[in-house]
Amino acid sequence: MPVSDTVHIQLPGDRRYEIRIGAGLLDSSDAWHGLPRAAAAVIVSNETVAPLYAGRLRERLQQVYGRVDLVVLPDGEQHKGWESLNRICDHLLGAAMDRKTVLFALGGGVIGDMTGFAAAIYMRGVPFVQVPTTLLAQVDSSVGGKTAINHPLGKNMLGAFYQPERVIADLDTLDTLPDRELRAGLAEVIKYGPIADALFLDWIDANLDALLARDKGVLAHAVRRSCEIKALVVGQDEREQGLRAILNFGHTFGHAIEAGLGYGAWLHGEAVACGMVLAADLSHRLGLVPADAVLRLRALIERAGLPLRPPQLGVDRYLQLMRVDKKAEAGAIRFVLLEAVGRAGLHAVPDAVIAEVLQAHGAA
Amino acid sequence: MPVSDTVHIQLPGDRRYEIRIGAGLLDSSDAWHGLPRAAAAVIVSNETVAPLYAGRLRERLQQVYGRVDLVVLPDGEQHKGWESLNRICDHLLGAAMDRKTVLFALGGGVIGDMTGFAAAIYMRGVPFVQVPTTLLAQVDSSVGGKTAINHPLGKNMLGAFYQPERVIADLDTLDTLPDRELRAGLAEVIKYGPIADALFLDWIDANLDALLARDKGVLAHAVRRSCEIKALVVGQDEREQGLRAILNFGHTFGHAIEAGLGYGAWLHGEAVACGMVLAADLSHRLGLVPADAVLRLRALIERAGLPLRPPQLGVDRYLQLMRVDKKAEAGAIRFVLLEAVGRAGLHAVPDAVIAEVLQAHGAA
Repeated sequence: MPVSDTVHIQLPGDRRYEIRIGAGLLDSSDAWHGLPRAAAAVIVSNETVAPLYAGRLRERLQQVYGRVDLVVLPDGEQHKGWESLNRICDHLLGAAMDRKTVLFALGGGVIGDMTGFAAAIYMRGVPFVQVPTTLLAQVDSSVGGKTAINHPLGKNMLGAFYQPERVIADLDTLDTLPDRELRAGLAEVIKYGPIADALFLDWIDANLDALLARDKGVLAHAVRRSCEIKALVVGQDEREQGLRAILNFGHTFGHAIEAGLGYGAWLHGEAVACGMVLAADLSHRLGLVPADAVLRLRALIERAGLPLRPPQLGVDRYLQLMRVDKKAEAGAIRFVLLEAVGRAGLHAVPDAVIAEVLQAHGAA
Repeated sequence: MPVSDTVHIQLPGDRRYEIRIGAGLLDSSDAWHGLPRAAAAVIVSNETVAPLYAGRLRERLQQVYGRVDLVVLPDGEQHKGWESLNRICDHLLGAAMDRKTVLFALGGGVIGDMTGFAAAIYMRGVPFVQVPTTLLAQVDSSVGGKTAINHPLGKNMLGAFYQPERVIADLDTLDTLPDRELRAGLAEVIKYGPIADALFLDWIDANLDALLARDKGVLAHAVRRSCEIKALVVGQDEREQGLRAILNFGHTFGHAIEAGLGYGAWLHGEAVACGMVLAADLSHRLGLVPADAVLRLRALIERAGLPLRPPQLGVDRYLQLMRVDKKAEAGAIRFVLLEAVGRAGLHAVPDAVIAEVLQAHGAA
């Protein structure tokens, strides 16, 4: 019997959906039972993932849907833009797909975000299901209803809040994940500790080697606890008015790194890992947490094989990039800072302190 | 004192907004009081409307917002696509506009739909205000939260449900509306009679000459009653699951006419007017309404100077175009049909009956 677990997501109103987590789910009919009926389903995937899993998913879906199409997009964050979004929409319209058509996002966060956005806007909304095949997507981007594409002037700048019908996270798909991407996914797992759960941070510390070795039982717990924390936060703040911002710990610096180097140079999780170190140091310099909290996070990120040193873009460029970030309003840039190990909040930070941190970490 | 009236729109949850209707509203500070505060506002308009009203709107908004930008798009339904949408998004990102920025849609339905869609997706949602300057937009497209762009394969195929903060319908802006567009707007006013309010149909019959002469008092009633009926319908069915479909009376044929000729050849209202005659005839042939209901609607549409005869695209092309319409699911095409004068519902219609009607009206 496969390991299997379910996280229940409750949304405002009567809406709800489930995250199924386990090994062997692609081959378990139970995980796919009860999805919306339609004449057709469309799997959206990329050139890397489609050859590995699209055939099995298609077989599974053909037991329910009369027609199952496959749209294969180029792989990578640099392809998360209008062009790929258009390819999905063009396919749906070219095949005269109706408004009950169910989209299945088979891949990582990029595929999930783009497929979700396409589902949100096609005929003003069709149902979609997330089938995340990267650790990052399983613990982060498939929970919370954020969908988006990038714009040359900023990451995730165009998108919608749109919830999936279900998330099906088959841990077996992580077997084919490159090591670098597994580590990048761990950055988001680590994130949930400092912002919300000190005990989970202890657990990650103790189980990091097993996580890196892809132990299924340990991975299952990491994915489940990450989803639970994210669901708890998102459930209180679906439209990102306040609390939800804490999920962006490390992301303001991280987005600047990604945009500054050009999307795809660093993986999202790598940029976030480095951004967390910078944001933790910012928290310390503003007197919110002691130095050892920064050192401990830094050590864990280093053990996970993630980058500590930000690229040398220069202070002015960083400030410029961070000012266009969605979290910025006119005036001082706001960061998610640690207020303790296990608690975070949004704080406006003077440019001078940001510059100090960037310089101290070799980014200037 | 200007004529002024307010329709209150109640949405699911605690959301609500107002439609202000009256002469002189662009110059009345009261109509603009209490809108969301922000560092910046962006007026989106087109090459026809901007020279007429953007200056006055800008002056009005500069009393509230520190910065007021203007984005001017080319005019016409054929420009309601990705390219124009991108121009709005590019401007917002180029100016580093934050997520509190308020968009103002100054123009007809095309500007309203595109601006609303841009507001829905920019940073996953910024507030927007509708300032409709055509009769069509005042009675139809600024109520109900539908936003969209066209795709070469279909009208309004990509979009979102997204509600404005307020609608401000200044009847004085109708003074500069070309006669052909006024008549096209009347098509949607007429529509509300047969689908929902037989008494309103009587009123339109009695006041058509005053409407065509742009009498402000009569226009105010037509706009208010149209908005009230639409609000009543939309309020019960925001996401278009059922009842709301009746607002698309005449639209299935109408969209096929627009798409078949290429967007912009016929005005939307013209296509809908002709589509209503066809749909009424369909209702009669299926035994739902007597022949005189069709004749009466036909006579009113003729008096309003709107087209009765559909373009000769051929039956097959019509069927193909209508099958890609959002209202279509796999199988028989569904139409909004009259079940009485003042009541409508959705009905699946066999292709043979559709063909019969198209042939009878010279569309084959």
